[in-house]
Amino acid sequence: MQRIAIVGMGQIARSQHLPTILADKDFSLTAVVNPVALPDALDIPLFPNFDALLASDVAVDAIAICTPPVFHYEIARCALKAGLHVLLEKPPTLTVSETLELARIAKEQQRTLFTAWHSKFAAALPMTKSILREHDFSAMSITWQESNEKWHPHANWFWDCVGFGAFDAGINALSIVVSVIDKPIFFKSAELNIQRQRQAPVSAHVAFSFPDPEMTAEGYFDCGYQGQNETWTIEWKLKNDAKLLLSEGGALLQYDGETLFKLPEIGPSSLNQEYPAIYRRFSDLISQGISEIDTTTLQLVTDILAYGKRTYEA
Amino acid sequence: MQRIAIVGMGQIARSQHLPTILADKDFSLTAVVNPVALPDALDIPLFPNFDALLASDVAVDAIAICTPPVFHYEIARCALKAGLHVLLEKPPTLTVSETLELARIAKEQQRTLFTAWHSKFAAALPMTKSILREHDFSAMSITWQESNEKWHPHANWFWDCVGFGAFDAGINALSIVVSVIDKPIFFKSAELNIQRQRQAPVSAHVAFSFPDPEMTAEGYFDCGYQGQNETWTIEWKLKNDAKLLLSEGGALLQYDGETLFKLPEIGPSSLNQEYPAIYRRFSDLISQGISEIDTTTLQLVTDILAYGKRTYEA
Repeated sequence: MQRIAIVGMGQIARSQHLPTILADKDFSLTAVVNPVALPDALDIPLFPNFDALLASDVAVDAIAICTPPVFHYEIARCALKAGLHVLLEKPPTLTVSETLELARIAKEQQRTLFTAWHSKFAAALPMTKSILREHDFSAMSITWQESNEKWHPHANWFWDCVGFGAFDAGINALSIVVSVIDKPIFFKSAELNIQRQRQAPVSAHVAFSFPDPEMTAEGYFDCGYQGQNETWTIEWKLKNDAKLLLSEGGALLQYDGETLFKLPEIGPSSLNQEYPAIYRRFSDLISQGISEIDTTTLQLVTDILAYGKRTYEA
Repeated sequence: MQRIAIVGMGQIARSQHLPTILADKDFSLTAVVNPVALPDALDIPLFPNFDALLASDVAVDAIAICTPPVFHYEIARCALKAGLHVLLEKPPTLTVSETLELARIAKEQQRTLFTAWHSKFAAALPMTKSILREHDFSAMSITWQESNEKWHPHANWFWDCVGFGAFDAGINALSIVVSVIDKPIFFKSAELNIQRQRQAPVSAHVAFSFPDPEMTAEGYFDCGYQGQNETWTIEWKLKNDAKLLLSEGGALLQYDGETLFKLPEIGPSSLNQEYPAIYRRFSDLISQGISEIDTTTLQLVTDILAYGKRTYEA
């Protein structure tokens, strides 16, 4: 049984981490860190910041960091140095260098560090990976279009230069891509659409490339969508000319229109299926005394944000 | 004797690579690749692009890639696959992932890949490194201020989103830093000043951090300087409270005002000293059948460009 604290009680922590931990027999929630009091009283000690938790007599073995990404590195660094295991919500840190430094500290401290990209635990991914391995593909297209207002209400950090904007969600698509394809993928070019007075893109068109120059990939990422059809799909043109379509963020898989896999209950709540698997993996990693670290996904988004062409809305 | 071709005959190739290769007994210049004819006729075959050189009967063992950075990866990839050794002018590629892929290909092809950061070969660096190792430092400050019009006349690519702007030169300072300090350095925050209708920053203030949170570092990078005092200095406050000053891009080293090392002839032409050392190293690497690859410097600049706060000049 791992005594765990949630650090940062925003939307993802309240809707996913909290109920998952409360239902998981391997974890016991013993503290919460949040700068403001929670509207729903939890019968668990609340600390205004991570230092206050460390200075208290509340014992924890692990933490799940769910703050805005810019704070991840410093909290994780202090936690690992204090001998705690660390689960990082995506994106793991602001920069790849920070994640690699945390990996070094975790090894030095013999603690588990887990970059928990939740979309990597989507239900249809194992079958997707298996089909891509069998048939390979010549082209890939990502469409990741959702409403920021719905998923990140009142989140001002989201539009900061360190807030990721459309790639807060878009990075989930890329975490799926690096998980299911067995070849390296590179940034090629990008157009970033930014709203006035903001820093992070609201939408982006991105072209990717592969070691094989005949293979192509593109992505459209939009967090400012306001219609009724939020879309989280990745489509592959297979080398046998069939079309493989992964949709609903990884809950539905279709091959030339035929459904190969469908999560029983599809919809926003189907995301819930990912978090029990994440905490199962975290528990296993701790038992085995190892870390699981993916920096490829963050590197791709860093490259897009560094070298994409910016245009500003009037 | 390596038969070598220069690919991309811009300012740095004409002023540094060409005279260095012509004077180096280990290399023989057998071709030049440039999209437009050269004003000064060279008695050497000229090809409009790299494919045309490969398709010709002119034999080469190695190439030096001196094009704008966005073209480095594709030319290097083709060259390595064709069995050539490759020297990359800085920055080695647009993205770290591309450099790592080239490293993989070089290993597979048993050819030498050399990321030739020229400022790493500045004369005062070995002594600087030795003093920093002896005394350590608590603070570091970089000032890298030069005239783009002087060093990159008519270079439109320079202001593109993949042109690096102030970091075309600024990355030299960072290549020195990662070479002389023996600890990891991270991006902390940045303010990027961009001129209207342009993408790459003309100037930037950057804060860096280290694993030790007591240590600080900052940098000011400006390629739009128009005065008489171009500046390429890095200053350290040592832990014994002395001040270590590396200036002239690495040609002059002073300790509390006392000169410890001075290149006999300081000035823009003192850069010349770096390139003979670069070609000596390239020749040694080829003889030993190994590569030399630094991605740390490019990662730092990628992080700055990805997560820096942009402001636009009126």
